[in-house]
Amino acid sequence: MILDGKQIAAQIRGELREQVQALLASGQRAPKLAVVIVGHNPASETYVNNKIKACAEVGIEAEKIAYEEYITEQALLTEVRRLNSDETIDGFIVQLPLPAHISESSVLSAIDYRKDVDGLTPQSMGRVIQGLDAFISATPKGIRELLARYKIQTEGKHVVVIGRSNIVGKPMAMLLMQRPYLSLPNMSASSLGDATVTVCHSKTRDLKSICLTADILIVAAGSPKLLTADMVKEGATVIDVGINRVDDPTTPKGYRLVGDVDFEHVAPKAAYITPVPGGVGPMTIVSLLQNTLQAYNEHTR
Amino acid sequence: MILDGKQIAAQIRGELREQVQALLASGQRAPKLAVVIVGHNPASETYVNNKIKACAEVGIEAEKIAYEEYITEQALLTEVRRLNSDETIDGFIVQLPLPAHISESSVLSAIDYRKDVDGLTPQSMGRVIQGLDAFISATPKGIRELLARYKIQTEGKHVVVIGRSNIVGKPMAMLLMQRPYLSLPNMSASSLGDATVTVCHSKTRDLKSICLTADILIVAAGSPKLLTADMVKEGATVIDVGINRVDDPTTPKGYRLVGDVDFEHVAPKAAYITPVPGGVGPMTIVSLLQNTLQAYNEHTR
Repeated sequence: MILDGKQIAAQIRGELREQVQALLASGQRAPKLAVVIVGHNPASETYVNNKIKACAEVGIEAEKIAYEEYITEQALLTEVRRLNSDETIDGFIVQLPLPAHISESSVLSAIDYRKDVDGLTPQSMGRVIQGLDAFISATPKGIRELLARYKIQTEGKHVVVIGRSNIVGKPMAMLLMQRPYLSLPNMSASSLGDATVTVCHSKTRDLKSICLTADILIVAAGSPKLLTADMVKEGATVIDVGINRVDDPTTPKGYRLVGDVDFEHVAPKAAYITPVPGGVGPMTIVSLLQNTLQAYNEHTR
Repeated sequence: MILDGKQIAAQIRGELREQVQALLASGQRAPKLAVVIVGHNPASETYVNNKIKACAEVGIEAEKIAYEEYITEQALLTEVRRLNSDETIDGFIVQLPLPAHISESSVLSAIDYRKDVDGLTPQSMGRVIQGLDAFISATPKGIRELLARYKIQTEGKHVVVIGRSNIVGKPMAMLLMQRPYLSLPNMSASSLGDATVTVCHSKTRDLKSICLTADILIVAAGSPKLLTADMVKEGATVIDVGINRVDDPTTPKGYRLVGDVDFEHVAPKAAYITPVPGGVGPMTIVSLLQNTLQAYNEHTR
């Protein structure tokens, strides 16, 4: 069965739109996100515009705060502190990458975790891991939501995560192994977390035999077709986080997007599988919207 | 082979003593730790006194700051902030547990990570996980040091951690899976981290077959003799974090301390194994001393 991220994301956007409309109807203000962008990296500008558009679609107000490339770290830190204390902003994000003369970790560390709707700061990650209130970053949150919406149980399952990045592999592993203290609206809390989790990466020996023991495989390695059919147990759930460009002269753009999973051959063995595109990808931007509404709810409570 | 934590800890204390003496000989001040204790919990008082004694042994100055049970959370937070900015204090710890009317997570979160020599705050944990400078908490740090001193390689090894606590299981898993960016004095950096890591816990199914694939087993479950010989591969390394009291009328105290590993039967199969007591335990207090000296070095740099 295909885990249709595109359709689930549309469904969640619909739910968010209704929630925001209900707020407005009851005389409350709309939730508001600020997006800080430095310089004119075309990819960053596209991402930022997509995020702002997604906000608009559900009725979340979004403010783009653009700085030129030459802003100093000190000035950017001042802006972050201003946003931390601006009562009209529920959450904000600083689009990465930043110019080389600015320390990304210094800037991220300055963000108040209560407004860190990207969930990328050390503070947020530490809080999530310790089971304290905090925002979960987009990709792990989106995957968790996708599993929840399809009612895929994780308790006692063996989850194998391939990839140990700070933004996907590590937080995903933590969320799935821990006691299920963070409830999701559409699923009983007891069905999430409580998995036995193995994290594999480029130094892992005998990846195949480890993958063959997995009930759920989450592949975030950035390597096209890394996961092949012979590595997957019959009936496993396969989540593909990879987005890789491969040359394809038959397409107008000269390339197409493929995941880290050999979808064609793995799909027949998998009970559930995400496509690329249309699987995890659409869920990530929805995570940002959900976090922003959550920040609003906590902020205005 | 027995991993002799008691002996390694004594060796490290000797090294620390020399380093502090060298500082004093060159006219610099001694490193200084502050220990905050609230109330009169006898176990807490013993721990605090042991920490202060250990500091004295290596020449680290230690100040005990004792409050009565009825101190308010606000007053304790004020004290934490004062310690954050006190230039004469290199690091400090707040002994847990705190009285029920004080939120431990609020107090811990207020500690500046640069002085958090216990490494228990969300900020420190998040920073360690993201590969940023921060103090690693006592038990994972002590285990890592023990592995390093015995030159036990972790790269590409399968490490199975039993237990998913915030203070042992989770940070241990993170440290051993990630790229080896934190160098240790007595071992090349490339020999640490880079392991394939599985975290098991009370909800894990078929624990035995997972353990049998482990090159290194780290058991922190708080359950006497949980790990038995039939769960251990010949030649594995076994680290026992458990400290459990079991009744024993033949001893003067009426009990003795045992670990989570059935040492008697597991030891013959293991290439390396820690005893209880005398394995991981003595390493933890040494971690605190190392962190305090590291805080001093960064603070006075």
